[in-house]
Amino acid sequence: MPPSPPLPGEFSLIARHFRRLAGPGSLDLSDDAAVFDPPPGRQLVAAADAMVAGVHFLPGDPPDTIGRKLLRVNLSDLAAMGAAPLGYLLTAALPRGTPDEWTASFADGLEADNRAFGVHALGGDTVSTPGPATFSLAILGTVAPGAALLRGGARPGDRLWVSGTLGDGALGLRVLRGELAPDPAGHLARRYMLPEPRLALGAALAGVATAAMDVSDGLAQDLGHLCRASGCAATVDAAALPLSDAARAAVETDPALLSLVLAGGDDYELLFAAPPALSEEVLTRAAAAGTPVTPVGAFADGPPEVSVLGADGAPVPLPQGGWSHF
Amino acid sequence: MPPSPPLPGEFSLIARHFRRLAGPGSLDLSDDAAVFDPPPGRQLVAAADAMVAGVHFLPGDPPDTIGRKLLRVNLSDLAAMGAAPLGYLLTAALPRGTPDEWTASFADGLEADNRAFGVHALGGDTVSTPGPATFSLAILGTVAPGAALLRGGARPGDRLWVSGTLGDGALGLRVLRGELAPDPAGHLARRYMLPEPRLALGAALAGVATAAMDVSDGLAQDLGHLCRASGCAATVDAAALPLSDAARAAVETDPALLSLVLAGGDDYELLFAAPPALSEEVLTRAAAAGTPVTPVGAFADGPPEVSVLGADGAPVPLPQGGWSHF
Repeated sequence: MPPSPPLPGEFSLIARHFRRLAGPGSLDLSDDAAVFDPPPGRQLVAAADAMVAGVHFLPGDPPDTIGRKLLRVNLSDLAAMGAAPLGYLLTAALPRGTPDEWTASFADGLEADNRAFGVHALGGDTVSTPGPATFSLAILGTVAPGAALLRGGARPGDRLWVSGTLGDGALGLRVLRGELAPDPAGHLARRYMLPEPRLALGAALAGVATAAMDVSDGLAQDLGHLCRASGCAATVDAAALPLSDAARAAVETDPALLSLVLAGGDDYELLFAAPPALSEEVLTRAAAAGTPVTPVGAFADGPPEVSVLGADGAPVPLPQGGWSHF
Repeated sequence: MPPSPPLPGEFSLIARHFRRLAGPGSLDLSDDAAVFDPPPGRQLVAAADAMVAGVHFLPGDPPDTIGRKLLRVNLSDLAAMGAAPLGYLLTAALPRGTPDEWTASFADGLEADNRAFGVHALGGDTVSTPGPATFSLAILGTVAPGAALLRGGARPGDRLWVSGTLGDGALGLRVLRGELAPDPAGHLARRYMLPEPRLALGAALAGVATAAMDVSDGLAQDLGHLCRASGCAATVDAAALPLSDAARAAVETDPALLSLVLAGGDDYELLFAAPPALSEEVLTRAAAAGTPVTPVGAFADGPPEVSVLGADGAPVPLPQGGWSHF
């Protein structure tokens, strides 16, 4: 019997690299769509992000970190809603001639994070592009009915909290660009390439936080979004901002780098509001989630503006806006 | 009181063009993710496709058709599962300097199709790219439990059916490239730019079709996928293939164009199998769905290969494969 004609390259590529990312409901990535039962008694949560080589990641970044970063920024959106991940759809536009080893490493990274975060691919698409490698990931998650953490619930008097440390990602990008001396442990660059979605913390904040979002475009800009959604003002105590040892050392060497902590982006930490009476509860739940949290300011009556006060109580001028694509 | 600092361009762009595409659960595209209740008693269906300027659409295509085509190819995946659409996530990577009128027209097209297909945006992302405009759309739909039309159920003896007409899209691409004289009514070019997802037909085929998929990469290649999934062979009667008047005229002028009907791609018609005893039921349900269907061949015992027979009963040589990105 004659051999079957070879399948076109994209099917072979999907079989070689992406099929191992698939999980329940994906029909092994070989049907027109995924089919699965929604988890009973839960609401669905959905978000999508795109990443372009040269814009969201550096073409020379290790390929195993690129898919992981895309997955993690989407998981961070779920974390900001207090949601648990379910699965994702991935589209990859790859330049013709992308080395097979590059794609294999890209998939290796995703496979590792599938395990780390208990998530899997449901479907997607692989196409060629004459431009830079471009990826898009749509994530699905679930949350208990009515428990989603929205942006609009902060009230004057609420305390302002942030998870982890700020500025590492933006400083890490400067390190990778050769504009800033690397820290010995490589902490800053790693934080740029592999953000840590705060899923356990987000899930733990239901019923305690009045509003939450993740910090992707810089604290100042994102807090501004939260203020507009909530209809109140916010004041940040610059001296209270949590910095990693590496970020603190960088800012001590060059105080102008504080602007990256305030407005640099790529933090993927959670920013949230909670009544002061629940501060102990916030700390207890965050400890149980294994995520440090720090009170960094407060919400107040007033127009939806963000003020940052220095250690001397004087306003710190904010850099104009945060990251913008246009 | 000082004015608030202006929002970065992407938020303004989203507000100007994309917010009107949003619907229930989207939180007005202004939170970290969408939140919504899954329709009770239904399974979820999910798929994603990407489109790159110069690869999947022509940079000069009317911008209002581009988002619609992306939405429609995703809806076609739902149709192929017998699913009903729920909502979508859209990521857009736009070159800096994309004229605002282009983006407005892109969104206008999507808004029209939101109404036409009863669907809406749940969320997404808008980023800049140094390369060609690149879009990705992930669609969610629902289907009655166990009713999804899969690819693997065709059995030897089943009749092979196809909806609508084949070849129009591939011929339309040649027209738009100036390689083929346009038909007077512009049918071929329109079919390339605006495929018709067969949602009503897909939903009507539950319990009748043993297998189904949509034809996106050409009849021969896609039927090969269906044969491999089902573990049987298929024979196509070339003379039975349904052609539009415009496609028939083109093929009569140049018989070599028949290869585009067999393997050209961009059809977005449904290809499905059903037992011969149910042929009347297939016709009745298709008529109720308002979609013409044509029997074009049969499945048989044997290795998963596709044979095409001409009017004289002799094999028609198949072009090598269908469209491939790599």
